[in-house]
Amino acid sequence: MAYDFYMPARVVGGENVVTKQSALLKKFGNTCLVVTGGTGAKQSGALAELTAALDKENISYGIYDKIGANPLVTACHEAGRLAVEIGADFLVGIGGGSALDAVKAVAVFAANPEIEPEEVYAMNFKNEPLPTVGIGTTSGTGSEISAVSVLTDTKGVKRSIKGDFGYFNLVFADWRYTCSCPMSVTVSTALDAFMHAAEGWLGPKCNEPATAFAAECLPKIYKWLKYFYATNELPDEKGREELYHASLSAGFTLNYCGTLFPHPVGYILTEHYGIPHGRACAAFFDKLLQRAEEFAPERAAALCTLLCDSRENIIKTVNNLADCSDIEISSERAAELIKRWKAIPKNFECTPGGYAPALAADALVELKGKIY
Amino acid sequence: MAYDFYMPARVVGGENVVTKQSALLKKFGNTCLVVTGGTGAKQSGALAELTAALDKENISYGIYDKIGANPLVTACHEAGRLAVEIGADFLVGIGGGSALDAVKAVAVFAANPEIEPEEVYAMNFKNEPLPTVGIGTTSGTGSEISAVSVLTDTKGVKRSIKGDFGYFNLVFADWRYTCSCPMSVTVSTALDAFMHAAEGWLGPKCNEPATAFAAECLPKIYKWLKYFYATNELPDEKGREELYHASLSAGFTLNYCGTLFPHPVGYILTEHYGIPHGRACAAFFDKLLQRAEEFAPERAAALCTLLCDSRENIIKTVNNLADCSDIEISSERAAELIKRWKAIPKNFECTPGGYAPALAADALVELKGKIY
Repeated sequence: MAYDFYMPARVVGGENVVTKQSALLKKFGNTCLVVTGGTGAKQSGALAELTAALDKENISYGIYDKIGANPLVTACHEAGRLAVEIGADFLVGIGGGSALDAVKAVAVFAANPEIEPEEVYAMNFKNEPLPTVGIGTTSGTGSEISAVSVLTDTKGVKRSIKGDFGYFNLVFADWRYTCSCPMSVTVSTALDAFMHAAEGWLGPKCNEPATAFAAECLPKIYKWLKYFYATNELPDEKGREELYHASLSAGFTLNYCGTLFPHPVGYILTEHYGIPHGRACAAFFDKLLQRAEEFAPERAAALCTLLCDSRENIIKTVNNLADCSDIEISSERAAELIKRWKAIPKNFECTPGGYAPALAADALVELKGKIY
Repeated sequence: MAYDFYMPARVVGGENVVTKQSALLKKFGNTCLVVTGGTGAKQSGALAELTAALDKENISYGIYDKIGANPLVTACHEAGRLAVEIGADFLVGIGGGSALDAVKAVAVFAANPEIEPEEVYAMNFKNEPLPTVGIGTTSGTGSEISAVSVLTDTKGVKRSIKGDFGYFNLVFADWRYTCSCPMSVTVSTALDAFMHAAEGWLGPKCNEPATAFAAECLPKIYKWLKYFYATNELPDEKGREELYHASLSAGFTLNYCGTLFPHPVGYILTEHYGIPHGRACAAFFDKLLQRAEEFAPERAAALCTLLCDSRENIIKTVNNLADCSDIEISSERAAELIKRWKAIPKNFECTPGGYAPALAADALVELKGKIY
């Protein structure tokens, strides 16, 4: 296994880090655009602490707060225009995966105002993107430390792009910003982080650094998933810290290993049925584990050992939290998706034993009324 | 604990990676200086594979091969002049810790030819150092992925400097280059890697990423230390790969956590008694573990759990491999060192419970005839 590693983002963590380390922002310039969604950045307290830090450093700023869930490439384009208008030297993204993924594309549009929204997917732009700073407010995405941006195109399809443009120059990692996440977001984002680490662990690319990060975070995330399943209660502050840091570790694994079939199949549940991303991917954890038990049995067994639980308990916990048993998809509708998956087969090919898109279609149909 | 992480070096690993990925060298320029010691770079095969790769990419090169063990800052200065003479755009270091630490300083001198050898310690230079590529040939140093360079000054004292200049731009990580290491080097470098991870693990700064890397590598390194102690035989190829990759993981922990008192105290054994660096530091593992058992008992116990062995066996294994029982240092001579240590107290202060330099002086005296 090749010992590859690349993570150019500088992650600076700790409580009140935005306030304490505001001077780090100044080196990026005198004007910035803050890119956020409508509520998370405000409710978390991150936006207020950031703007106070910008004021302290005499950095003028504009705010674009129209990034929605599963961010539209058109919104990123619009934010890019605003960045040009205010003469932004750099960008700050605040939020969960949506705002963080979005600001990466905004940085491209701001530096290349001539390109159209859909052109960003071609990753063929002339000028270097503006520098970006990321501030996470959920414990799931790992976008803080990945080169990936997942954007919804003008046809409503989630498509990911990956490249050096996707690395933040600076990440402020303060778990306090995740404390305002409600129960549903807390569970779904924890499932997302769990799937990033578990898919990496079970996939073919898991080298030593990716294994190290997955082994560090998986027991912690699973401990909290069991807690959520048992109590339906929010974690305490210690748990918020543990989950946020675990989501970052999972992000390292995700960034190197990529994801397996649950991700593209989960996109369908999100695009058409509004299931939050983490739950949507985790709904296929049972199928993934079964596949791994057949074609990568050592890794599958090691995963259960790492989580200190039986496979039955693990599947029960994850699948009950992800519960998509009210989603009804016909065989005909599911069959129509096979073509889309065949066009971007990487996640299916990387699944242990390979995973035919036809099997994924079956898995979608089987969701209805599924009992774990 | 703050989730900090920074590692800008791009590590590209795998067998024959220099040959396969030679194109990565071209982006640094058309001329380079290769910086090595007298033998390791040649015996390992790394120098021949690198020069073939440079030829293939039409990169002209010079070679400076006079870096000795515990590299002299004056040799780095001399190599810097040669780099200027040949108009080097970048530098490639091949070797163990000595050549890799040295090339970092050569990059400073090459870009700042007006500074004197000793001035590099002040870390106050005008021009950005030249880009550097690192190719490791031993499984110990972690220099490939640390910001540290340890150089012997004009008075014969080992002094470390740390800063962004110390990060390689690119690291080629091919374990095959470690296969020519003889038994003594293999053991001492394995002890060095063990101490990097163990000191990090037991110290106060071990955050989640540092813990992840230490937990990944420590059981592997210890497994091989036990093998060396039991058999006095070289590892097989699988072992070479495991040990080299483990030394890189230990390097991540080292880079963030720094080292504790065994490192500066070990320098004395190297400077005055010629004990190789890894053995010199590991000779104080027993004292460190005892200190941790008193002042950081959970981490000490967790270390033994991680290594799956009793504290007695662990101490016996490490100390026998490090064996310095023939070193005789008088109380008076040891007491003279206290002043030096007090001037750079960080490693002593970071040791669990703090560690008075006077205790370190006692530990030096106690080496003579020590039985484990």
